[in-house]
Amino acid sequence: MNFRLSNRVTKRDFQGEFTAKILKAAEDPEIISFAGGLPFASSFPVKEIQAASEKVFGENPVLALQYNSAKGYEPLRQVIADRYKKTMDLDFSADDIIVTNGSQQALALIAAALIDDGDEVACENPCYLVALQTFHLYNPVVCPVELTDEGMNLDSLKEMLDKHNPKFMYMVTNFQNPTGITYTDENRQAIADLVKDRDIVVVEDNPYGELRFAGKAGRSMHYYLGKQCLLLGTFSKIASPGMRVGWIACKDPDMKAKLLNYKSAVDLHTNMPCQMILAHYMLDNDFEAHMVDVREMYRQKAVCMMDCLDKYLPEGVKFTRPEGGMFIWLTLPEGVAGVDVQDEALKRHVGIVAGDPFYEYDRNTNTIRLNYTNSTDEEIDYGIKALAESIEVVMNRK
Amino acid sequence: MNFRLSNRVTKRDFQGEFTAKILKAAEDPEIISFAGGLPFASSFPVKEIQAASEKVFGENPVLALQYNSAKGYEPLRQVIADRYKKTMDLDFSADDIIVTNGSQQALALIAAALIDDGDEVACENPCYLVALQTFHLYNPVVCPVELTDEGMNLDSLKEMLDKHNPKFMYMVTNFQNPTGITYTDENRQAIADLVKDRDIVVVEDNPYGELRFAGKAGRSMHYYLGKQCLLLGTFSKIASPGMRVGWIACKDPDMKAKLLNYKSAVDLHTNMPCQMILAHYMLDNDFEAHMVDVREMYRQKAVCMMDCLDKYLPEGVKFTRPEGGMFIWLTLPEGVAGVDVQDEALKRHVGIVAGDPFYEYDRNTNTIRLNYTNSTDEEIDYGIKALAESIEVVMNRK
Repeated sequence: MNFRLSNRVTKRDFQGEFTAKILKAAEDPEIISFAGGLPFASSFPVKEIQAASEKVFGENPVLALQYNSAKGYEPLRQVIADRYKKTMDLDFSADDIIVTNGSQQALALIAAALIDDGDEVACENPCYLVALQTFHLYNPVVCPVELTDEGMNLDSLKEMLDKHNPKFMYMVTNFQNPTGITYTDENRQAIADLVKDRDIVVVEDNPYGELRFAGKAGRSMHYYLGKQCLLLGTFSKIASPGMRVGWIACKDPDMKAKLLNYKSAVDLHTNMPCQMILAHYMLDNDFEAHMVDVREMYRQKAVCMMDCLDKYLPEGVKFTRPEGGMFIWLTLPEGVAGVDVQDEALKRHVGIVAGDPFYEYDRNTNTIRLNYTNSTDEEIDYGIKALAESIEVVMNRK
Repeated sequence: MNFRLSNRVTKRDFQGEFTAKILKAAEDPEIISFAGGLPFASSFPVKEIQAASEKVFGENPVLALQYNSAKGYEPLRQVIADRYKKTMDLDFSADDIIVTNGSQQALALIAAALIDDGDEVACENPCYLVALQTFHLYNPVVCPVELTDEGMNLDSLKEMLDKHNPKFMYMVTNFQNPTGITYTDENRQAIADLVKDRDIVVVEDNPYGELRFAGKAGRSMHYYLGKQCLLLGTFSKIASPGMRVGWIACKDPDMKAKLLNYKSAVDLHTNMPCQMILAHYMLDNDFEAHMVDVREMYRQKAVCMMDCLDKYLPEGVKFTRPEGGMFIWLTLPEGVAGVDVQDEALKRHVGIVAGDPFYEYDRNTNTIRLNYTNSTDEEIDYGIKALAESIEVVMNRK
């Protein structure tokens, strides 16, 4: 008896294969890993979550344990809407928020609601790899837009818009994954001017916005574009990724209805206990004070990694200097492939991700992504030294 | 600016529209609802879940709050595998279990992994309505198989197999939704004999199996078919639906890998706190004793509803007498439409579901689904009396 699998799951999945390989390697406890995007465990507000959990199961257990609606827990949606007003001066009501299983499911729902086979979608190049993987479930043609240190390369964006008509454009404007860059306000405004009269949904993913430890925050694309922009958020980087609670802020009633229908068909609703725990956690605690601590923790780690890179890297390797988020992006000398460095580093028990899976088309690129949030200073020092050696070994092969 | 939605979410969704209408009506707190499939709130093991939650957040908070793997929490998968051995004498390892967001997501993952546009899938007729809704996200042709009180109508199954070549066959063998019937062992064996040499995956959904209050359990299709059968389960009906934890038991390595890839692309993994709470709950408590209580609670409600139906229903209305599960299925006299009765009952503040959305093709059927698990005896008495009146009103119109 044979399982006749769908084309959807049998076609080549470059991103998925790459990630699986990395994850497998990282299972070795001896490995120092800069490969993932995990929060540092001591950043979790453990005591506050414990207290919130006792409250949920003590005061309102039936609501936590019973079925609920696809939209999500109303007080949590209100907390999210209120925070948009407070931190970004954006007007959303609780009704505009759809709770999802992390922002990963938000990407899957939006892709499902917009992409028919062969439709075009625009992505940053390089782009968050699991976003590419998720979009490919729906068989789109990906139109890449190049990045600079200031955001999208506007010439590249104009050229893409001249040639293509993407249904949506996916962008991570703050501390982009993988590059760590942040879009300037001028760049955001220019992008908005270019897309605002077109039927292109702007999907602005903002998982890292709260993790700013330097510089000044830019405006959300929603500020420029209103309902044309769907704004994605998550509790994964500010409270807990294991709870799998994220959201879509959406002002278009029809789009909202379709996203909710789809959500209820795929899993009815996001789990209630974690939604309720997070609502209590946000309402009962000084979340700002917590974030001040987390930002300082990540600032120190970022500075430590940048110092080590300055100290150990061979001549000719460049890297981005993020003002927040989780990642630093290395550009190796021309012709030095990140995948070769990845193999060499693994021999030295250091895990990194070569840039290739972040690109839709480019392979053997001279790029590498490093994560600094989930390692100690000692691990960073040891690991970056070993990485520098690995780069030298590959450079000397030429 | 227009949102160019995909065909997937804009095509007619009969099941979704029907459900939305029912849910909207049921929002009225004055309504006595036999329409849903909700567990009775006092069936939830609240104290035990509280204790398990304290343990999880007290003893192992970082594991609960951090990212984990797509497959799910290993001790929970072991609990599930052990219970299959104990209650059904089936050999699964923890490795064969994929944790999903309720069995609803299991249906979505399996449909995604098997259905290409236009592929055939076989379903019971009538069939669980959200299963139909979920399968339709992937654009299949649904091939209905008629039911009898003993399971599938074997002539209907043979005819379907002669004419069609479905990629999978979906069946709820215990206390079927919507009819409440249970497949006899002879019927299961006969079905297995008919499908076992074909490349048809048998998807056996068993959300209600633990809710048997009379009669004797039959063998799982997995007993007859081995890896050809994917077995679905959930904690929704035995502990908590709000936690959204279900699973797929799958022995085929390739299918398992594809399901896991797809799961990680759509939401990375199921939330960890609820997985861990359920594992502790199952390990630390006398789950059997809890289920004895729940079964007795539901037996009394089922008996109460059957007694009321016997007492109030007009001549010519038949109904199934379930040995467990959550539903009773009414067959009205020929030509009396369930949808008309549904409207009449709503005027009397009683919510039911007409049979139509459970059918792929048939409309204005003379059938109705009743749920008995989420009402008190008083509500059942009042509601069934009002339902009987509604049926008479519609019958007298003819």
